Order: sequence, then structure tokens, then C-alpha cells
Amino acid sequence: MSQHEVAPTAEHVALATWSRLVEPGDAMAQAAVQAMGPCEALQWLESATAAEIPPQLTERVERWRQRLVTADIRRELAMARHVEAHVVIPSDDEWPAGLDDLGAEAPLALWVRGHVPPLARSIAIVGARAATRYGERAAAELAVGAADHGVVIVSGGAYGIDAAAHRGALSGESADDATVAVLAGGVDRLYPSGNESLLRRIVEVGAVISELPPVSAPTRHRFLARNRLIAAMTSATVVVEASHRSGARSTANHASRLLRPVGAVPGPITSAQSAGCHAMLRDGQAMAVTSAQEMIELIEVVGHTHVQEPISASGPLDGLPEDQARVLDALPLRAAVSVQSIAAAAGMAEREVRGALGLLELAGKVRRSADRWART
Amino acid sequence: MSQHEVAPTAEHVALATWSRLVEPGDAMAQAAVQAMGPCEALQWLESATAAEIPPQLTERVERWRQRLVTADIRRELAMARHVEAHVVIPSDDEWPAGLDDLGAEAPLALWVRGHVPPLARSIAIVGARAATRYGERAAAELAVGAADHGVVIVSGGAYGIDAAAHRGALSGESADDATVAVLAGGVDRLYPSGNESLLRRIVEVGAVISELPPVSAPTRHRFLARNRLIAAMTSATVVVEASHRSGARSTANHASRLLRPVGAVPGPITSAQSAGCHAMLRDGQAMAVTSAQEMIELIEVVGHTHVQEPISASGPLDGLPEDQARVLDALPLRAAVSVQSIAAAAGMAEREVRGALGLLELAGKVRRSADRWART
Repeated sequence: MSQHEVAPTAEHVALATWSRLVEPGDAMAQAAVQAMGPCEALQWLESATAAEIPPQLTERVERWRQRLVTADIRRELAMARHVEAHVVIPSDDEWPAGLDDLGAEAPLALWVRGHVPPLARSIAIVGARAATRYGERAAAELAVGAADHGVVIVSGGAYGIDAAAHRGALSGESADDATVAVLAGGVDRLYPSGNESLLRRIVEVGAVISELPPVSAPTRHRFLARNRLIAAMTSATVVVEASHRSGARSTANHASRLLRPVGAVPGPITSAQSAGCHAMLRDGQAMAVTSAQEMIELIEVVGHTHVQEPISASGPLDGLPEDQARVLDALPLRAAVSVQSIAAAAGMAEREVRGALGLLELAGKVRRSADRWART
Repeated sequence: MSQHEVAPTAEHVALATWSRLVEPGDAMAQAAVQAMGPCEALQWLESATAAEIPPQLTERVERWRQRLVTADIRRELAMARHVEAHVVIPSDDEWPAGLDDLGAEAPLALWVRGHVPPLARSIAIVGARAATRYGERAAAELAVGAADHGVVIVSGGAYGIDAAAHRGALSGESADDATVAVLAGGVDRLYPSGNESLLRRIVEVGAVISELPPVSAPTRHRFLARNRLIAAMTSATVVVEASHRSGARSTANHASRLLRPVGAVPGPITSAQSAGCHAMLRDGQAMAVTSAQEMIELIEVVGHTHVQEPISASGPLDGLPEDQARVLDALPLRAAVSVQSIAAAAGMAEREVRGALGLLELAGKVRRSADRWART
């Protein structure tokens, strides 16, 4: 019997129930649970009289009770067991610590198929569903490179960039603990159906997660709310392709609010699918990410200090003192020429040219024949 | 007789001679000319005894005299006239004012074919010679878009990005004053030869410029020094494609040192020709530029403040109050459903749902049939 099959505690059941009553990010539910404890808050919800409910909670309590009527947590836990899902609550080791940074908007519980890997070194790779081949290739290559360095890749399980990122992570040296998909609906349904076999594979080696109980439909509101979980449970978010108004940018915005580093992958300026990434670069919201190494730097380098590369153009003159470089530059490619001729071409005195030629000869870069000099 | 055919003044002849004696950016020559005046400095160079030469200038004077022996400024001015080039000096109206920001490294004179247009609104577009089709297309489109807004495009006349930028500028609404090419060798030779007809066209409507007199060969040192002129005479520099160690980055570095805005055009992360641009974005040296409009903003917006676009994903829910959005979101795409069913799906009280449905009906977004509601 694995730890996932241990019978849930009363606290697990209570928080699972709460996750059934609320919409994602319900700060009032979070406050009630924090103030009373999950079991006590649930009892209070079931039995409180109108006089016992603070006026500012009246409407919300009505909403929760609306759902409490139809909720059957035993049935939902049974459905979860049926797909081998288990409930993870904040006091569990498996709980992603980063979620706590969401404060009042943190989820009350997670429904998990598989097992959530440690997320201390994790990156969200997200982007457009209608991705280009370029974007999918970039997402996959970034994911595999990061996964090979032990970074867990988290995404939303959607078509396009999300799927490419998951696939990249799974194709690395070890698929174990490589990737996590966070869904906007219940984990009983591996949505979208075209990604079902991919998500099934993620369940085997990583985890498919939702804050909503089985049977919950992935509404648009829930998709947007889901993005905050992806941003919060990872150390950084990288957007691979996004149109100007893509939902992937909402994940990046959550990451920015949580002070997580944000990366954006540049692409052709002629591609509408890269326009959102470029806007993030222009706004200063995101750091340009062009390789797995640069992506890893997002979570390893505080403040993103970089060693600047030497800027000068490369060539045979590199690293030479200026006078030697000018002399070598003044030498024709093949012909041998006199010191006078070199001096005139380089704009240097003959004495200086002779000194530079001697050092270049020692370095094997020029050779003398009679009174003339040539490149080697 | 156009103004270009006016006989040069003594000052023009003296500075033209100086431009023959020095290598680009010779701060000592600039200092001597500033201190004594160009004619007097030349006389001093011709006749000063060893005792009259400050010790720190001895070596440099030897260099200058080395070339003075072979210089024949009458012949060079005649050659310039032969290709209809004229000498422009700092006191001329045609002198690009931005060059003065180079201080001691400013050129002493310019040799000009054509006529230098006013450069108050000008942008340098530079990049790799070994450009991709993507890069050439981007350069041309940025150039034509900016030229159509009266921005003068300055570049280096080289193959690849430079040529595409010049061509783009020439293909705008008006080619007059549209573009300037700054060469690393004498303007008598329109180098590289494959661009000769392009450069000839630039001479007709704009200007081809060099700080070196006719017959001067474009050495590597002179190519790099030429880049400072391109950066200084324009209001901003945009790099379209550059490998990690491209010379185009030296132009950008000069622009940065001169506190001119720098732009870089993103490209595919799989393209080595965009690696230099991406490095500039990562270093914070450059602003991402993806359109002519954004390029023009570099020279028009101080501090690059941008109005941030709304971030939320688009769709039928846009702009709706949260409750109406949730209700609409909870409605199936086609089926009509009861208020109870909507309330349960949206996690809202029936009373709230009824209110939202009424407003949505007024907005024409839902319709009622008997006791059920559907999207319109």
C-alpha cells in the first residue's frame, strides 16, 4: 500500500470538500479555513444560523451552500481513487511550497494523479496553443536541456507549447520526476483529449494536478486561475510563444507579481506568435531566453548578472597589442613587402614597425625573406 | 556651379591634408588642430625642429611626417573632384553635428559624394554581412517604414543587412535624402564592388561618406573605426542581425558610449545570426525592436515609456463585470439550461445569476426561452 493509498485524514476530507465548494482563488474561503481550521469551518458552514454569519460573508456563504447541497465528497473521493488520484493539503510533504506565496489566493487542496516531485528547481514553460513549429521545437529543446540538469518542467498540458515542453522533459536522460501538468478541470478527465496519452505518461513519471475535484469542467475562468498555480509552484516562468493577447502572458504576470523571474523566447518579428514575447521583452518584464542554459540561469543567478562577452570582432588580430595588429593588418594577404611600405600603410614610424614585426615573427605570425615581410 | 564645386578654402585643404596623415580617431592630431588651427598645425608639422616638438608627440609626429612625404593633397583633391566628391569640415553646414560628440576622436574632415542630408532624425541600421533572408527582409522593412516617416537611414554600404537597409530606404515614398553610406575606405572606390550600383544611387539622392581621402584602402582597423562615425552621426543605432562576435556590435557599443539609444531586432533562437542581437537584449544594452514604429520610438520617446497593453486573453467575456463573465462562462455553447444549473456551475447564488442574466440579456449576449437560458 503506497502512501497515496493511505485513507485520507479528516483534514484531507474537509479541505477536499472545500475545494468542491469554491471557485479557484476564493480568498474568503481561505480566510475562513485559516481562522477556524478546515473541519470546523465546514461544520460552521453547514450549521451556522444567519446571525452567526458576518454580513460581509452572507453572499459568499450562500454560494458555498448552493454547492454544498449537491456535493458528495465520498463519491468524489471514490472517483479520485478510481483514477488513482489523491488529495494533497498544505501540511503534506508533497505540497508545493511555492503555492503558499499566493496567500489568500492559494488553493485549499490539490487533487493529484502521480506524485508531485520536489519543485525547488523547477521552471514553468508555457505558451500559445496555436504554436508554430519553431515555437514547439524551441519549447521542447529548452525543456529537455533543463530537465537534463534536474530542473522539473511545469506546464498546463495544453496543445502547442505546453505539450512540446512536457514532451521535451519526458525525452530527457531520465523521465522520472521530469514534469508536472496543472489542469484547469478535474484530473479524472485528461483534457484536452488529444493529449490524453501524453498526460497519462506524465501521471506515470510525474504528476497531473488540479485544485478542482473530479468532474469539474475546465471553464475559461478556471483556465486563467490555473495559471497562478503554475507561476507560484515554480521558481521561474518562461513564455515560448504568445500572441499579444495570449493567456500565457497571464501566467507571466502572476510570476511577476510573485517576484519570480520571467523569461521570454524571442522569435521572428514577422511571427504574430512571438509578438507577446517581444512585448514582454520591451516592457522589461521578461529576460530574453535563447538556450536551456540561459533558462537555468533565471533560477540560479540572483539579479541576472552576466559576464559580458568580449565585443570585438574576431580574426587573426585578436588579442594582439594595437601596434602589432596594425602592422599585421597592413600586410597584404600573400605578397611580401618592405618595412617602408608597411609603415606607410599602417601610418606608423619605421622603427615602430620593425619592433612590431620582430614580435610578430616570434609569435609565428609573419616571416622575413631578405628585406621583405609576409604573413605566414 | 553648385556649392560643392566652390574652390575649397585653405582650412578645407589643411583639414583634408590632415585626414590624409592620420589614422581614424587620432586624438593627438585632433588636439594639435584644435590648439593651433588646421593650417598652423600643418605648417608646424612641416617645419618644427625636434626641440619644438613636445616629447609625448615625437613618435606620432614621426608617423604623420612619414605620410606627409608621400601626400600630394592637390592630386587627391583632383581625384575627389573627378568623382564629384567634396570635403566637408566641422564649420560647414553639411557637417553632421553628432560627430562632435566624439570629442578627440571626431574625424578631422569628411570626403563626401552627394550631399549629406540633415541628420536630426536619423537611425543607423547595421548588421551582419552574412545575413539571412529573414534579416535582410527585416532590415528593408524597418528602413522603408522609418524613411516614410522622414527618418534618414545611415549604414555602412556593406553586403547583407547594410545593403538591405539602404535599399529599403531608397524604396520609400521619396528617395531624396533617404540614406547615407559611410565607407571605411576612400569614396573614389565604391566598395564592395557588388554594391557599386547601389552606392552610385545613394550618391545621387543622399551621400556616400568617408573620413579618409581617395585611394585609402578599407583595412580592418578602418572598418572598426568607421563604425564610430555611423553611431555618432545618428540619433539611434539598430542592429538587425549579428553573430556573437559581429562587427555590428561595435557600432552598437559606440552608440551606447555616446548615450544614443540602441535597438536590436529579435530573431529565431536557432539562428546564429541573431545570437548577437539576443545577447544585447539580455545585457540590457538594446531595446527589442520589432517594427518601424518601435524603431522611431527609440529617437522620439525619452526613457522608452510604453503604455502597457491589457494583458487578459481576449474573447466574448472581455470587459464584462466578473459576475456576468462567470455566468456567461457557465453557459454551454449551444444548449439552454436552467438558472439552478447555471448557479451550480458558476458557483454563484441563484439570485446573483438572475441579476447577471438580466444584464446579459439586455446586452444581447444571452436569450431566454421558457425557464431556460442560452447564449445568443
